[in-house]
Amino acid sequence: MAGNSFGEIFKITTFGESHGVALGVIIDGCPAGLEIDTAFIQQELDRRKPGQSNIVTQRKEADEFEILSGIFEGKTQGTPIALIIRNEDQKSKDYAHIKDSFRPSHADFTYETKYGVRDYRGGGRSSARETAARVAAAAIAKQLLAHFNIQINAYVSQVGVIKLEKDYSTVDLSKTEDNIVRCPDAETADKMIELIKEIKKDGDTIGGLVSCVIKGVPVGLGEPVFDKFHADLGKAMLSINAAKGFEYGSGFAGTTLRGSEHNDIFYTDEQNQIKTKTNYSGGIQGGISNGMDIYFNVAFKPIATIMQAQSSVDKHGNETEVTGRGRHDPCVLPRAVPIVEAMAALVLADHLLRNRNSKL
Amino acid sequence: MAGNSFGEIFKITTFGESHGVALGVIIDGCPAGLEIDTAFIQQELDRRKPGQSNIVTQRKEADEFEILSGIFEGKTQGTPIALIIRNEDQKSKDYAHIKDSFRPSHADFTYETKYGVRDYRGGGRSSARETAARVAAAAIAKQLLAHFNIQINAYVSQVGVIKLEKDYSTVDLSKTEDNIVRCPDAETADKMIELIKEIKKDGDTIGGLVSCVIKGVPVGLGEPVFDKFHADLGKAMLSINAAKGFEYGSGFAGTTLRGSEHNDIFYTDEQNQIKTKTNYSGGIQGGISNGMDIYFNVAFKPIATIMQAQSSVDKHGNETEVTGRGRHDPCVLPRAVPIVEAMAALVLADHLLRNRNSKL
Amino acid sequence: MAGNSFGEIFKITTFGESHGVALGVIIDGCPAGLEIDTAFIQQELDRRKPGQSNIVTQRKEADEFEILSGIFEGKTQGTPIALIIRNEDQKSKDYAHIKDSFRPSHADFTYETKYGVRDYRGGGRSSARETAARVAAAAIAKQLLAHFNIQINAYVSQVGVIKLEKDYSTVDLSKTEDNIVRCPDAETADKMIELIKEIKKDGDTIGGLVSCVIKGVPVGLGEPVFDKFHADLGKAMLSINAAKGFEYGSGFAGTTLRGSEHNDIFYTDEQNQIKTKTNYSGGIQGGISNGMDIYFNVAFKPIATIMQAQSSVDKHGNETEVTGRGRHDPCVLPRAVPIVEAMAALVLADHLLRNRNSKL
Amino acid sequence: MAGNSFGEIFKITTFGESHGVALGVIIDGCPAGLEIDTAFIQQELDRRKPGQSNIVTQRKEADEFEILSGIFEGKTQGTPIALIIRNEDQKSKDYAHIKDSFRPSHADFTYETKYGVRDYRGGGRSSARETAARVAAAAIAKQLLAHFNIQINAYVSQVGVIKLEKDYSTVDLSKTEDNIVRCPDAETADKMIELIKEIKKDGDTIGGLVSCVIKGVPVGLGEPVFDKFHADLGKAMLSINAAKGFEYGSGFAGTTLRGSEHNDIFYTDEQNQIKTKTNYSGGIQGGISNGMDIYFNVAFKPIATIMQAQSSVDKHGNETEVTGRGRHDPCVLPRAVPIVEAMAALVLADHLLRNRNSKL
Repeated sequence: MAGNSFGEIFKITTFGESHGVALGVIIDGCPAGLEIDTAFIQQELDRRKPGQSNIVTQRKEADEFEILSGIFEGKTQGTPIALIIRNEDQKSKDYAHIKDSFRPSHADFTYETKYGVRDYRGGGRSSARETAARVAAAAIAKQLLAHFNIQINAYVSQVGVIKLEKDYSTVDLSKTEDNIVRCPDAETADKMIELIKEIKKDGDTIGGLVSCVIKGVPVGLGEPVFDKFHADLGKAMLSINAAKGFEYGSGFAGTTLRGSEHNDIFYTDEQNQIKTKTNYSGGIQGGISNGMDIYFNVAFKPIATIMQAQSSVDKHGNETEVTGRGRHDPCVLPRAVPIVEAMAALVLADHLLRNRNSKL
Repeated sequence: MAGNSFGEIFKITTFGESHGVALGVIIDGCPAGLEIDTAFIQQELDRRKPGQSNIVTQRKEADEFEILSGIFEGKTQGTPIALIIRNEDQKSKDYAHIKDSFRPSHADFTYETKYGVRDYRGGGRSSARETAARVAAAAIAKQLLAHFNIQINAYVSQVGVIKLEKDYSTVDLSKTEDNIVRCPDAETADKMIELIKEIKKDGDTIGGLVSCVIKGVPVGLGEPVFDKFHADLGKAMLSINAAKGFEYGSGFAGTTLRGSEHNDIFYTDEQNQIKTKTNYSGGIQGGISNGMDIYFNVAFKPIATIMQAQSSVDKHGNETEVTGRGRHDPCVLPRAVPIVEAMAALVLADHLLRNRNSKL
Repeated sequence: MAGNSFGEIFKITTFGESHGVALGVIIDGCPAGLEIDTAFIQQELDRRKPGQSNIVTQRKEADEFEILSGIFEGKTQGTPIALIIRNEDQKSKDYAHIKDSFRPSHADFTYETKYGVRDYRGGGRSSARETAARVAAAAIAKQLLAHFNIQINAYVSQVGVIKLEKDYSTVDLSKTEDNIVRCPDAETADKMIELIKEIKKDGDTIGGLVSCVIKGVPVGLGEPVFDKFHADLGKAMLSINAAKGFEYGSGFAGTTLRGSEHNDIFYTDEQNQIKTKTNYSGGIQGGISNGMDIYFNVAFKPIATIMQAQSSVDKHGNETEVTGRGRHDPCVLPRAVPIVEAMAALVLADHLLRNRNSKL
Repeated sequence: MAGNSFGEIFKITTFGESHGVALGVIIDGCPAGLEIDTAFIQQELDRRKPGQSNIVTQRKEADEFEILSGIFEGKTQGTPIALIIRNEDQKSKDYAHIKDSFRPSHADFTYETKYGVRDYRGGGRSSARETAARVAAAAIAKQLLAHFNIQINAYVSQVGVIKLEKDYSTVDLSKTEDNIVRCPDAETADKMIELIKEIKKDGDTIGGLVSCVIKGVPVGLGEPVFDKFHADLGKAMLSINAAKGFEYGSGFAGTTLRGSEHNDIFYTDEQNQIKTKTNYSGGIQGGISNGMDIYFNVAFKPIATIMQAQSSVDKHGNETEVTGRGRHDPCVLPRAVPIVEAMAALVLADHLLRNRNSKL
């Protein structure tokens, strides 16, 4: 079975190629009666859209959406919500040169081999443009989550070697949108922006990290043994274009700690809530949310499209040379922030609904 | 929906609690006609079973399995294969002391809250004992993969701060089973074993890394956009008890590279196969295997059960103290190796079959 | 989970309300490389569309579709195929009178109670207009089936008490489209048309049967024990609006036969094919196709909307009266023919692909 | 994907062959906290088991079950419930004669062709013995339904031409278990028993009908547009061995009625409940339960195994002769009653849980 759906109860299916007629998504399983603020959907799409600053791709897409079904008199109806975004700025001729060639570290070769055919225009279905559909769907998921007081905040915590050396709990998450790189620490943000501009000048690209924090999650989300909350989160993040790694809570660094250091001690707070003194668990124990903040990191590689000549092969296996054309991001990180939030929202919405059947 | 199944075509469902009657698994979707070597299944279970060395738990379980269905005259029948492992050494009284208390960084609190009930004996369903069922199922998946010449090799690459500083391509993977810690480098293995013994003496635990390499994977496995090969691998690994992180190919380290350094250049080899000169992609491009080696790391936290007194709360929120009893692993890593391989085998078997429908 | 998807490998998800912006469907799982004749899609939609004759509803819908994704250079790409049909003739004011009332034997009451909200315009999601999306998707499925020489032919075999008293093997299936009621026997068709006109004059409606024959099905389709071929066919048919019953092969009539009369005796034909002398099995044995013709009947009730005053209640439980307005079918049967074929095509396409994993 | 699972939330997977080691089932998705009466499970198995009277097969199977997981201290834990039934009376040698031959109207030929292999002993997986696992699972589903006051009653309403000419509402459903044929009308039951004995004497078999009534279903179960309540019920029933047809409410007979006769008029009763005066809808409107009784019929063909010599072919296509041996039912109907109830219970339990997400 093809892999264009995500979620079990709050389930989305996306469609669309980078330079096709339209992108879109169907949400099947959103409960009826949720009031939808359509302006918020556009706002989320705007955070992801190309051309929003001089450190991202200059492709011009309004990314305006149209809702085709599922919402009536401002409310979800319990029926599938379909939403499309037409492609406008389709400079397909930018891609004629790679019709028969495989760009290094792109999906050209694997798609051509797997499917026997390939929409070479802008990467077709493999383009990160597809994530617009995810962001649109997640804008509805976020409204469902808001109803239950769950908030998600992602931000850029590393670009190349420039790293935000502060813990999520010590930064002001409300400042993420204050700068174009989406790092809540102004000083670090400036360094990141500088680095990206430099990289861009070289026609090159750079990787980095997005960190994400989720607050207000009730105890109980996650379905062991396979659909553990962090396992589904991990899959969600790794499904984002250019993602190479995922860690939650103490993550990779926690491997060097001893159990006596790493265990989170329970206590009862003044509101009679059971909490933990530390949170190495990252808000998840045994695959189930424990009510503490959930936090995690996603590693992104440098984008494959560079404005430099590279050796490659064509579909017949002959040597050739390819050079990036078109309009591309020197660094995926700033635009990855709303996408990381979107995937987190989809996982949360789904598990929130799944958990309704844990008890009699 | 509950989360006890994994896979879409080659689909397993596991069941069983740590101190219940039996563990088991159903495999639904294994193609008919595969010859099954049942001795191999036992061999795989023996690699995972407790009591196999002095650096792992001394719980005594023979972990002998019984096949209940799906195999006739030595071959799979295309019908569900059911396999059970009876629990023998159920010292449930070891757990009476935590009947009403929540062990730090365990799943006691989250299970109790999510389900309203809890089998407190040995962690019940949340125990890593459940992975025996996965290993058994994967022993069949591995036989399917062997038919297609796919090999999986995992090994311990880090315990605490002791790290194997060699790349997978420079170690002899056939030596992994030569020592009890399952690190293919003898010298590093000795250091790891020494560290684990020390930790054990302290009644403490320690984390680490398992690395895994998959060779012989055909081009084309993985189903974008959500069921990318590495996304499903990541979920599989993160579903293993104590896993905290996953990275593939260049992983987290790749975030500091530039695209011009990180891109894998295509070339055609002597057998007319399209290959890449480097393999930062980790054998996966656009979520689809490209025929190069797939390799990845899984981070494991220190096990939560320590032989030291820790402060905690009981189910009424009152302060209490818990101390680990029973027989536990000071380090999950050695026994995690066959489990990591098992989950990789399940992902591969599933995607191998899923890919049969990519083309007309 | 919501129920707007059908199929496991060749999987469709439909969306859209009767008087909303658009209807549509995503097909996820159609293998890549299939050449698509878009004119055929329109042709199939035209067979289902309203206003095609004077014995069906006079609602005016061109039912023109737009393909948004998944097809490039005339071929399927292995990516989701999205297809929409905009609603044009939305006389929503025809429905203002039932905004708060429940029409007898309609879905008004059950939708309102289940979801707490209701798009009352034309029945919203419960309208048979939704089946246009199924027919569009099936027009692609039929092209996949044609590639494997499978043909599906449905026809009207009963309208009220007017029954086609001939077996499917004795009628000329190529004549089904020769008359507006879609009964391949001209004489019976005339009687059916006459009856429908009479019923229409009375502002009433009438039920009947659609029969369907599938030829060219290879041995092996169907996945016991639950997804038997006829079980999935039955579900598919029963999911069509107004369907009340399903039988295949000897069906209900076969209940009075003895095993010695009913068993289909095997023999080997001149082409060395194993066949059966009779076909009470309806081409399916043990839930798996046996290579003989598959045939079945679907019972449809009289449509609930009648042009007569009926007593009912409003959403507060108060007594009220409703009278059908708008443009409705006096008999669902003629337009049900392409829908029955469509659902059969979707079941076949799905099982054809599912069967690729039955053997090693 | 293989077809051995049923349900989406309350999901069962069955396994086991007729003459293999054991049959069994995993239930994944039963909410935690349900008290389980294990005696009731045995009671249900006893209603289905062979040898219970002289009009059913004399195979001797105690059909005793063992629960392996998921229930602790008498309650469901929210974890998978595994249950097995060992096969005892495996007279496999009864089947040596059909090792290479295909019994008429059995699944021998289709299994052999689909899978390339076949467990010929007692029909292997295709045997109705598999339904014991369904009945066991449903005995848990029924306890969940009882918690919500939903009752299911099936009975034999026809054997051959002997038909119970009374509506379900006019018979005393509590009398179904009073006789061995499970027809609640004593007089009709006698005639049915007489007929079956006659048929048995001839070494022949006979078909018939099972009717089923479900009371106490809340408004709202069913998930349009594909998973309509009656569509899932229909699939469930058609998945039972020997089932050939399904109809609900007015069914096939309703096709000859006019809408003005067939529509169910709403009214408000003394308890302020919205009800319908008639119930041609069979308790389901628009695919969603409306609170009225749900009722339906299932048609069963005469069992294929007869004690008479029949012409057939072997696996090489050569002509041969087969005669039924072993111990078989002359009529499937009496034992089909608990199976029909079981499948109805599984559909209800699943939709009851699915409906928890229809609203915010």
